[in-house]
Amino acid sequence: MSSKNRNNNYMLQHNWYQKNYQGKGKQSVNKKPVPVKKPPVRISFLGGLNEIGKNITVIECNGDMVIVDCGMAFPDGDMLGVDLVIPDFSYIEQNVEKVRGIVLTHGHEDHIGGLPFLLSKINVPLYGTPLTLGLVENKLREHSLINKVRLNTVKAGGTVKLGCMEIKFIHVNHSIPDSVAFAIKTPGGTIVHTGDFKIDCTPISGDTIDLSSFARVGDDGVLALLAESTNAERPGYTRTEQMVSESLDNLFKKAEKYRIIIATFASNVNRVQQIINCADKHGRKVAFSGRSMVNYMDVAVKLGYLDLPKNILIDIDMLKKYPPEQVVLVTTGSQGEPMSALSRMAYSDHRKVMVGEGDFIIISANPIPGNEKTVGNVVDELLKRGCKVIYESMYDVHVSGHACQEELKIMHRLVRPKYFIPVHGEQKHLRKHVELAEQLGMSRKNIFIGDIGKTVEICNDYMKEVASVPAGKVFVDGLGVGDVGSIVLRDRKHLGQDGLIIIVASLDVYDGHVISGPDIVSRGFVYVRESEGLLDEVRQMALGILEDCAEKNIHEWGIIKNRLREDIAKLISQRTRRTPMILPILQEV
Amino acid sequence: MSSKNRNNNYMLQHNWYQKNYQGKGKQSVNKKPVPVKKPPVRISFLGGLNEIGKNITVIECNGDMVIVDCGMAFPDGDMLGVDLVIPDFSYIEQNVEKVRGIVLTHGHEDHIGGLPFLLSKINVPLYGTPLTLGLVENKLREHSLINKVRLNTVKAGGTVKLGCMEIKFIHVNHSIPDSVAFAIKTPGGTIVHTGDFKIDCTPISGDTIDLSSFARVGDDGVLALLAESTNAERPGYTRTEQMVSESLDNLFKKAEKYRIIIATFASNVNRVQQIINCADKHGRKVAFSGRSMVNYMDVAVKLGYLDLPKNILIDIDMLKKYPPEQVVLVTTGSQGEPMSALSRMAYSDHRKVMVGEGDFIIISANPIPGNEKTVGNVVDELLKRGCKVIYESMYDVHVSGHACQEELKIMHRLVRPKYFIPVHGEQKHLRKHVELAEQLGMSRKNIFIGDIGKTVEICNDYMKEVASVPAGKVFVDGLGVGDVGSIVLRDRKHLGQDGLIIIVASLDVYDGHVISGPDIVSRGFVYVRESEGLLDEVRQMALGILEDCAEKNIHEWGIIKNRLREDIAKLISQRTRRTPMILPILQEV
Repeated sequence: MSSKNRNNNYMLQHNWYQKNYQGKGKQSVNKKPVPVKKPPVRISFLGGLNEIGKNITVIECNGDMVIVDCGMAFPDGDMLGVDLVIPDFSYIEQNVEKVRGIVLTHGHEDHIGGLPFLLSKINVPLYGTPLTLGLVENKLREHSLINKVRLNTVKAGGTVKLGCMEIKFIHVNHSIPDSVAFAIKTPGGTIVHTGDFKIDCTPISGDTIDLSSFARVGDDGVLALLAESTNAERPGYTRTEQMVSESLDNLFKKAEKYRIIIATFASNVNRVQQIINCADKHGRKVAFSGRSMVNYMDVAVKLGYLDLPKNILIDIDMLKKYPPEQVVLVTTGSQGEPMSALSRMAYSDHRKVMVGEGDFIIISANPIPGNEKTVGNVVDELLKRGCKVIYESMYDVHVSGHACQEELKIMHRLVRPKYFIPVHGEQKHLRKHVELAEQLGMSRKNIFIGDIGKTVEICNDYMKEVASVPAGKVFVDGLGVGDVGSIVLRDRKHLGQDGLIIIVASLDVYDGHVISGPDIVSRGFVYVRESEGLLDEVRQMALGILEDCAEKNIHEWGIIKNRLREDIAKLISQRTRRTPMILPILQEV
Repeated sequence: MSSKNRNNNYMLQHNWYQKNYQGKGKQSVNKKPVPVKKPPVRISFLGGLNEIGKNITVIECNGDMVIVDCGMAFPDGDMLGVDLVIPDFSYIEQNVEKVRGIVLTHGHEDHIGGLPFLLSKINVPLYGTPLTLGLVENKLREHSLINKVRLNTVKAGGTVKLGCMEIKFIHVNHSIPDSVAFAIKTPGGTIVHTGDFKIDCTPISGDTIDLSSFARVGDDGVLALLAESTNAERPGYTRTEQMVSESLDNLFKKAEKYRIIIATFASNVNRVQQIINCADKHGRKVAFSGRSMVNYMDVAVKLGYLDLPKNILIDIDMLKKYPPEQVVLVTTGSQGEPMSALSRMAYSDHRKVMVGEGDFIIISANPIPGNEKTVGNVVDELLKRGCKVIYESMYDVHVSGHACQEELKIMHRLVRPKYFIPVHGEQKHLRKHVELAEQLGMSRKNIFIGDIGKTVEICNDYMKEVASVPAGKVFVDGLGVGDVGSIVLRDRKHLGQDGLIIIVASLDVYDGHVISGPDIVSRGFVYVRESEGLLDEVRQMALGILEDCAEKNIHEWGIIKNRLREDIAKLISQRTRRTPMILPILQEV
């Protein structure tokens, strides 16, 4: 196919708009059709650590606002003490009267985990598929928000009208059931947002991704495609989830004399289904371990997403009553998370499960980038205890939930958008996805690469970046949302790297002479016994400075503290080449 | 070949010992040869974070001790503020009179980086190849140890006698020139230690690994093989370093309009050689960036390991005087290290180099496990600035320096040891290497899997684990060696995760009533303005506790401080779900 022909695929006329809107407005009184000025569509990216458009995307047209997903992210290593990272919602709060609803693509934490934080500020109706809303319900219950929020179930294939936008839910395959993409018809044109997807022609449960709906939407004309980019660097196809079954079956045979422990994502209901089927075939009972595993399975069973053979489930407390070769333990911790069930087993810290030579452990997941080391350490500990461990890409015990290059290309060919915006990926993934689109004949000027806070305005004639909106990372630490920021993190980093030295003294309120102290307290610096001499020097120096200031009638505490800080920092650095935080505290008596 | 035949390969008679030792001792006065009791060989693993036998190995026989390598490791993410990790040398210090010397396999930091710390405690002669000792010299000069230590150059192929042991240096291929393995002839039998190696039949400089020496040593009989395991999980062969040349050439063509920046390991002299050759071919000048890059290249040039076309090098300050398409900048930072030259460029923090759309950046290295995220972040920043970036496995711009499975098998087949000890790897690598050895017909009982601190005793009749020796991680922080331990790290972690709250009060020396304070100081907890109300509550509670203690005549500071700590921790946790360090400091006035 020539390059020109390929281009034509992207230049299809946008029939849908013409069918639906043209001729209905005031302009229709004229005989000659006057070109209708379509309103532009604005798309803003508010969240996702380094992954653009991951946790939340805002779509606006004609004064109506629809929010796609509302997720959270787990903190990077340098966000010390932070529990979760959520998007900055100020743009939504500022425009609350425009918000018509939140539509959810699927039930993963990075797509629904931010909801309690947004919904505690504003009340907006939610729209999602049954499993997604089942998981949201649990979450809202935990945050005591369940009675306030309107949950609206929409099955894949269904449509919902929010303001001027009509949103079609299109079934896709992903690593959690009941995932959907959206075709959002706006007066400015149709926007397709794929959500996370892959094409699985032989899925474990449910149907193959609804390719024909994408095709029909494409036939009607699509203004812009927002497509996920997670695997844009991987050539070929993502393998079907079914291939895990075969691998599991082989491993179960290999492990016939062992207890089997399988770690996987709690949300991967189809994976757990396969494990259960395999256990059933090999005459083993199944127990679940880990809070989130138990929670997810509860919802999945309740809503009919998990098919349980009779009497196959046992409580984890019953494990010991069965011979090892007759049980399978399905557990959380496939990412080596320090507090997860599998980590606790590896470090002999699990209250109910001790692992050792009789255990055959399968990690049915790949490490998410950044977790390679923690997963590696857990595997190391398990091996030291004599367990057999199957991990990473050994034996095909995991497949991705995201589309590889060939699948992405199919999505582009089905949807044939005028404009393309790669989403759900770091810059390298987005840019690789851009390369793919260019190979398919799309012009670089019809592609927009986003960033957190950026807004793009699209209509038939142009796509351009417009003024940025407030966006970014908000840290959640314990009950606090947004009260940990860069200064607190800088202090935590300083304290964590170098520890601190506190100098406390009571000064005479009249003449500034030292009445008590100075006492030196250090934490996270060095062993006290190793540093006694040094801390004694610090004490002498502090005393000298304080008395010198008193002699010279310097009573301004800012000045005194600064001298203490600077001189003592210099002494410590000379002696140790370290830079602990120096904290002078003075009291008047 | 039958399994029985395969076994025979490992059961070759140990001819060498018989030729060399039998009949020479006192027993030879008897006509009938009495079986000679050979002394056992002991091998102890003192260091290497999770990698067994990586940084240092001690080999003992007949009261003589030889140390193989003396390296260091970079700290894991949870070793807050630690600069380096070195092995615990106490076992060596306790046996200093037995130590005959340190033999070095190659010049990488994880094999020579611990030397200054050991040599500042004990003085032992060093034996290494010219490049290795050249790099060691630099290191000793920095630590003002250069005049104290005896450096003995041994070329590959040479032999050195240390006590009862005769050590042959055998040339191997690796990612730094002048790397060797050792065949250590002891009265108890020959030990082969491969060091880090791969088989490169078309190396950039120097010869192919000296396969025939390994074969001859194998012919003479080998008691035990210690072989590296880094790539034991990877099937097939490691590709030749030469293949990088072709990829570089293609990329230079692609980048003909750009400035080229290439990040790689400073120690990979052959890689830099290829970059220089390619630059020469394409008419570009070469500049170096990053302290360690400049240092390594200095040594390599001085010792003749780098072949420089005339006038190809320019100073980094001269970069701006050439058009971008006529220069190549070779830089450190291929692992995304925060202070490295490439990171500084990515975050616009490099004093001399600004990067942007005119730059073509090649990361000629793979992320070492644990560095995936930092490398990814640097790539992301570079992409955002509009640079073209080639990274990870794109375009074959990197090959490993370690043997894959087929090469390991060849090593086993050449050396044909009686016993096998996998080294240089985490548990998963060691165990994979064990599987390989078993596939080659070696019996599991002739294989020993080590761990830090473990000692194995080997002689012709048995291999067994004996009592452990002192070993482990010693943290270097600034000038301090070993003064940061688990308590300090625990405090740092606590401070870093949750910050701290300090409560300071001056109490009346006679009745314990509060004279000044309590003052509340917090760091790394929350923004002060967000927490004013809470810190006020803390102050009131502290005052209440102190006055209550005074009323009740409780003057034991331990008790008072405990009450402060416990009650205030409870209050903070209720209000915020956080657990900052609570530090009460009392003074008497």
